[in-house]
Amino acid sequence: MSLLIVGTIAFDKIHANNHITGKILGGSATYIGIASYHLGATPNIISVVGADFPNKYFEILKNHNFNLSGVEIIKNEKTFFWEGKYLSDMNQRETLKTELNSLSKFNPKVPKQFCSPKIVMLGNLDPRVQLGVLDQLNTKPSFTITDTMNFWIENTPNKLKEVIKKTDLLIINDEETKQYSNNNSLIQAGKYILTQGPKYLIIKKGENGALIMSKNKKFFVPALPIENVVDPTGAGDSFAGGLIGYLNKVNKFDFESLKKGMIYGSAIASITVEGFGVENISNMSNESLKTRINDFINLIKIDF
Amino acid sequence: MSLLIVGTIAFDKIHANNHITGKILGGSATYIGIASYHLGATPNIISVVGADFPNKYFEILKNHNFNLSGVEIIKNEKTFFWEGKYLSDMNQRETLKTELNSLSKFNPKVPKQFCSPKIVMLGNLDPRVQLGVLDQLNTKPSFTITDTMNFWIENTPNKLKEVIKKTDLLIINDEETKQYSNNNSLIQAGKYILTQGPKYLIIKKGENGALIMSKNKKFFVPALPIENVVDPTGAGDSFAGGLIGYLNKVNKFDFESLKKGMIYGSAIASITVEGFGVENISNMSNESLKTRINDFINLIKIDF
Repeated sequence: MSLLIVGTIAFDKIHANNHITGKILGGSATYIGIASYHLGATPNIISVVGADFPNKYFEILKNHNFNLSGVEIIKNEKTFFWEGKYLSDMNQRETLKTELNSLSKFNPKVPKQFCSPKIVMLGNLDPRVQLGVLDQLNTKPSFTITDTMNFWIENTPNKLKEVIKKTDLLIINDEETKQYSNNNSLIQAGKYILTQGPKYLIIKKGENGALIMSKNKKFFVPALPIENVVDPTGAGDSFAGGLIGYLNKVNKFDFESLKKGMIYGSAIASITVEGFGVENISNMSNESLKTRINDFINLIKIDF
Repeated sequence: MSLLIVGTIAFDKIHANNHITGKILGGSATYIGIASYHLGATPNIISVVGADFPNKYFEILKNHNFNLSGVEIIKNEKTFFWEGKYLSDMNQRETLKTELNSLSKFNPKVPKQFCSPKIVMLGNLDPRVQLGVLDQLNTKPSFTITDTMNFWIENTPNKLKEVIKKTDLLIINDEETKQYSNNNSLIQAGKYILTQGPKYLIIKKGENGALIMSKNKKFFVPALPIENVVDPTGAGDSFAGGLIGYLNKVNKFDFESLKKGMIYGSAIASITVEGFGVENISNMSNESLKTRINDFINLIKIDF
């Protein structure tokens, strides 16, 4: 099985819990890839960084079996940087600074050996970049997962539509679902999206869990109630990474497999948010993941 | 088994879905009682109305096996009236008018034959009224359930504390949980409440479901995703009513029974919000409840 992940590798600076981090390792490809690694994946990464990206961070990624041959290093540019502040209830955040830097010049080149992936994960990026990757593939992937956000819905709706047409599973949040479909009923909005290409839609609700819909089925996964949320950054990407890591492992893409994948994704996301940046998931043991999965099963299991 | 419900019987006027109702039947005791009836309860009601309360509404309540001997009719007073407007996304509402009327004179008298209930449900009311009912009981109930709201947390904290001390299961929403415990971490806030009397806490999250906590266990029930929410009024009370109706039926109050009760409560609440006022739950068939329970099981069931 081969798993291709397109996304950002970035510096983040996080204000949360009365603490301000330095410039730490972040980015969607980073979280997605690390989460998938914990389920046995060796993710092939398409991304871009600047000349300032330190070797120690490359080492962290390599230690999680990242194949980095598709990561471009742009000279005379800096790495994409995001600085954000979480408010006291942790559900809201303010962006303090966004410096696109090398990301603004991202013109993905897919290495030959990556051109026939089984699974493609298109992290939240300019839809033109997402399409640029799909266009370079030699074979149609078995399963394409797409993440996006309100910015692209507003600013590049037509290109995004093209991406979504080629997507098997779209992962977005509740507000984006309503916005994309221009419908205030979440379920009607979700049904509309299922007529636009994707067989499956996962609607993320942050600390309120996630709902997956197909044409005829629905399944809901709560978020694990966490006592001390330290830093929510990367929760959504960890969720997606755990999910695709599971799909990659079982090599099945039916509704039941997606349900189980969501449990893995949610469990890993719950570990991510208990530490700053990647510190917790990068060091996560198999044992702690198993324990977390058990907590999850107890949270949702009922004999009826 | 005897079930005692203390709560309001009211007139509601609802603005939702581009429609304004007339003065329709509402109130917490109404919704709780009707929901419990569908699980076989014959609820004993403590409430108050004015002289303007029409016979046709008494008939609706009697048709749902309400014992109304504890409902006081205050002459020269009107029935409690609430008028509210739901905003387009249905998760927010504005109160347009609150006329306490007879409710401001509510001094509950518990009829003799109601004084040894197995289950007591204290609907959202002035804690002094809730205490007034508990003080009149001859025996300690097997299970006491309390609902309350931010207004009482702010304005009568000491009386509320007394009520909560005598409560087995407290049902409040997420904001109220944090407010009562003065803690922004929902789980820490919940744990605090479990040191104040209740063995169980249910944290309602509206369209995002509900979490039950005991000292050592947690279980989460999503809300059923509804395509057309017509009127959310009474959803929380229908949930509580379905839950206590189930507990009343099985005569058990352990964690597993509460979990199942939450499924019944959520299923009934999902039927309530698909119509204005009580029109949908008052006419609910056993068949439609069964179908709804099945939808629910499909929404949360996973083989792991």
